[in-house]
Amino acid sequence: MGKLMRKIAMVGAGMSKFGAFPDKNSRDLFGEAFINCLQSIDKNFDVKDIEALYLGNYSSDLFEGQGHLAPMCAELAGLTPKPALRTENACASSGIALREGILAIASGMHDLVLVGGVEKMTDLPTAGVTDTLASAADRIFEFHAGVTFPGLYAMMGSAHMAKYGTKKEDFMLVGIKNHNNGALNPFAQMNKSVADIMKSKIAKAEKQGKPKPAWKDEMDFLHDLSANPYIAYPMRLFDCSLVTDGAACVVLCSEELAKKFTDTPIYIVGTGQGSETFAIHDRPSLTSLRSARSAAQMAYKMAGVEPKDIQIAEVHDCFTIAELIAMADLGFWKPEEVAQAVRDGETALDGSKPLNTSGGLKSKGHPVGATGVAQSVEIFKQMRGQAEGKRQVKFDVECALTHNVGGSGGSCVVHIYKK
Amino acid sequence: MGKLMRKIAMVGAGMSKFGAFPDKNSRDLFGEAFINCLQSIDKNFDVKDIEALYLGNYSSDLFEGQGHLAPMCAELAGLTPKPALRTENACASSGIALREGILAIASGMHDLVLVGGVEKMTDLPTAGVTDTLASAADRIFEFHAGVTFPGLYAMMGSAHMAKYGTKKEDFMLVGIKNHNNGALNPFAQMNKSVADIMKSKIAKAEKQGKPKPAWKDEMDFLHDLSANPYIAYPMRLFDCSLVTDGAACVVLCSEELAKKFTDTPIYIVGTGQGSETFAIHDRPSLTSLRSARSAAQMAYKMAGVEPKDIQIAEVHDCFTIAELIAMADLGFWKPEEVAQAVRDGETALDGSKPLNTSGGLKSKGHPVGATGVAQSVEIFKQMRGQAEGKRQVKFDVECALTHNVGGSGGSCVVHIYKK
Repeated sequence: MGKLMRKIAMVGAGMSKFGAFPDKNSRDLFGEAFINCLQSIDKNFDVKDIEALYLGNYSSDLFEGQGHLAPMCAELAGLTPKPALRTENACASSGIALREGILAIASGMHDLVLVGGVEKMTDLPTAGVTDTLASAADRIFEFHAGVTFPGLYAMMGSAHMAKYGTKKEDFMLVGIKNHNNGALNPFAQMNKSVADIMKSKIAKAEKQGKPKPAWKDEMDFLHDLSANPYIAYPMRLFDCSLVTDGAACVVLCSEELAKKFTDTPIYIVGTGQGSETFAIHDRPSLTSLRSARSAAQMAYKMAGVEPKDIQIAEVHDCFTIAELIAMADLGFWKPEEVAQAVRDGETALDGSKPLNTSGGLKSKGHPVGATGVAQSVEIFKQMRGQAEGKRQVKFDVECALTHNVGGSGGSCVVHIYKK
Repeated sequence: MGKLMRKIAMVGAGMSKFGAFPDKNSRDLFGEAFINCLQSIDKNFDVKDIEALYLGNYSSDLFEGQGHLAPMCAELAGLTPKPALRTENACASSGIALREGILAIASGMHDLVLVGGVEKMTDLPTAGVTDTLASAADRIFEFHAGVTFPGLYAMMGSAHMAKYGTKKEDFMLVGIKNHNNGALNPFAQMNKSVADIMKSKIAKAEKQGKPKPAWKDEMDFLHDLSANPYIAYPMRLFDCSLVTDGAACVVLCSEELAKKFTDTPIYIVGTGQGSETFAIHDRPSLTSLRSARSAAQMAYKMAGVEPKDIQIAEVHDCFTIAELIAMADLGFWKPEEVAQAVRDGETALDGSKPLNTSGGLKSKGHPVGATGVAQSVEIFKQMRGQAEGKRQVKFDVECALTHNVGGSGGSCVVHIYKK
């Protein structure tokens, strides 16, 4: 059918601070996000109103040796014995929890649900994180051949360069833009611009009595292999998202109920999900994801809107190339035009279509199972004019989108929001 | 609301052979179940009719080092680029996938979905399996204190003995009954009765020239500590379910669509889910699960039926004590009456309310993430008179139930079926 039986509203949204927190586990992170979410609800809310928990998590199993997170987090939120479930689709885990929360209300089963996402990644050493993430790619045909995620996205980056003439500098520009946004987001893990990171490094060198680095500007800094080494050509350190601990929550309810809690609900008017072949060598293209195109098409159709109607979007920039691919898969630009759009500043905070005002995965951080819901948190704030500080966009946002990818594109989920 | 907007039918159901298969991984097992499911559909079905995959899996992450199973299995079934998602709630993972598949159709999003469950457990040594399963309990407060699943259910068993006078023999009777049923199920991992297992051991001893064991009957055999040692008092070897590789699939669709595929659809008229505190020391009772009582209440209310209306049920007998607890939590008997009901043969294949005609987790096997859907497969077959061989119940089943528990009861999901 592709048409929901009931209209869905988002009435609360909050996230934990993203970062590396050695003294916090999944429980602590979820609790922090839950409290911030509750505090965002305007009026009349009681935790007892919550009927179920939909929780996204990629692999607390491998990161923390803890499975079965949903009843654990439900208990923490005071929801026992209500239904609580976990969804897992790699980095799209909580975007899909959001979708399932929507369907649960649309189905008539529930009127109000809590949707969360959480991931605690930094207990493992970097190699352990890389291996754990690589478990979201094809273990038999990719991981065992030595390919991990930077390598998978690097292949997409190389293909994009070959096919569309995209330059390494275009990847860098995406990173610079997202760091500029994250610098304005108090919840971001890396809330510093690339220029500020460069300045810190210069100051540190001076303090240590080392020769002063000769970087002219942030682009010059990113070209320096000692500051920005290749992880997997053409993806360099500043092209990769972060390893992050964090959580995010939103409260969804039926249209009728929403008015009890706020005068300014945000409606989720479109939801779409798609899949792609598991291993990238089986795909018809390395520069586009069928999962994303299919999810976007489904969401646009349900919402009755077109790409041009979307004013802001949070897109899944796990690597800078992923943002360029998303820009085309979502129909915002043609694939051959995305690099020029970035060069022209179209996707910057003051551009024609700001992308990742939160800082994106690149700067806000990427606690994989929390990312999907954290994208919704940003949209909720931006649409209600509540984004902290200077990252609030200057225009009234009537229509927005989130795009959350799992693995190398095996999963994708897209949501469209209206006032 | 608790009332679905659309009525849901099950039109196909199949499972892989359950067992220990060193040469099969999750992909192979899912493929086998999928093909058996397709073959069960009466007419007019095309794989292209499937709109989405809902897949339950507990921890392929820890068992096989492979996360993100949903798009992998979707690709195998020829569903790319359609939506595919994984649910995880420990051993209730696929019962909850079933519930989400139901809600997806009721919501208006989909008309027809494939629901699957899969687990490949036997690649790990037994200690690894125990640790992996223990990750579904509270790692901080239980696992680190040395408690794994046999210990958790042993505490429930001891409490049941203390509170209701339940005997060790009652646990044994549950095991004997489920082995009797499993002996009639060609898909069961352990398709031998306890009596036959005893006879095999006697024959083996004779063949090896060892003294002939003096077991008089199966109960005598189960009392022998050398044949049936304690795993965690009062749970002995034959009180524990198996470590199993397996998968199961069902096809769900809207009521309107069902008639295209079969003249005898099975309707799922009730779905309920609940949660319980994560650690068992926080619970008000050790002899009842609030998750199960809450799930059952929700399902009964939606279905408009009472416990007495249920003619057969598949219940979650991960340990024999769990079946006794389920019998009361589902309202079939009072807790103080469950042991007598077992002694009286009420739950046997020819009893007043046959439980686990499939052999249950105890004998059919327990590939944890596949168990919930495998329960539905048994109900589908029994209600359509298609259960293989002599385990088909002798009466017409108009109303049946499945009860699928996650962890030590942190999650539970209950479904009610009608013709």
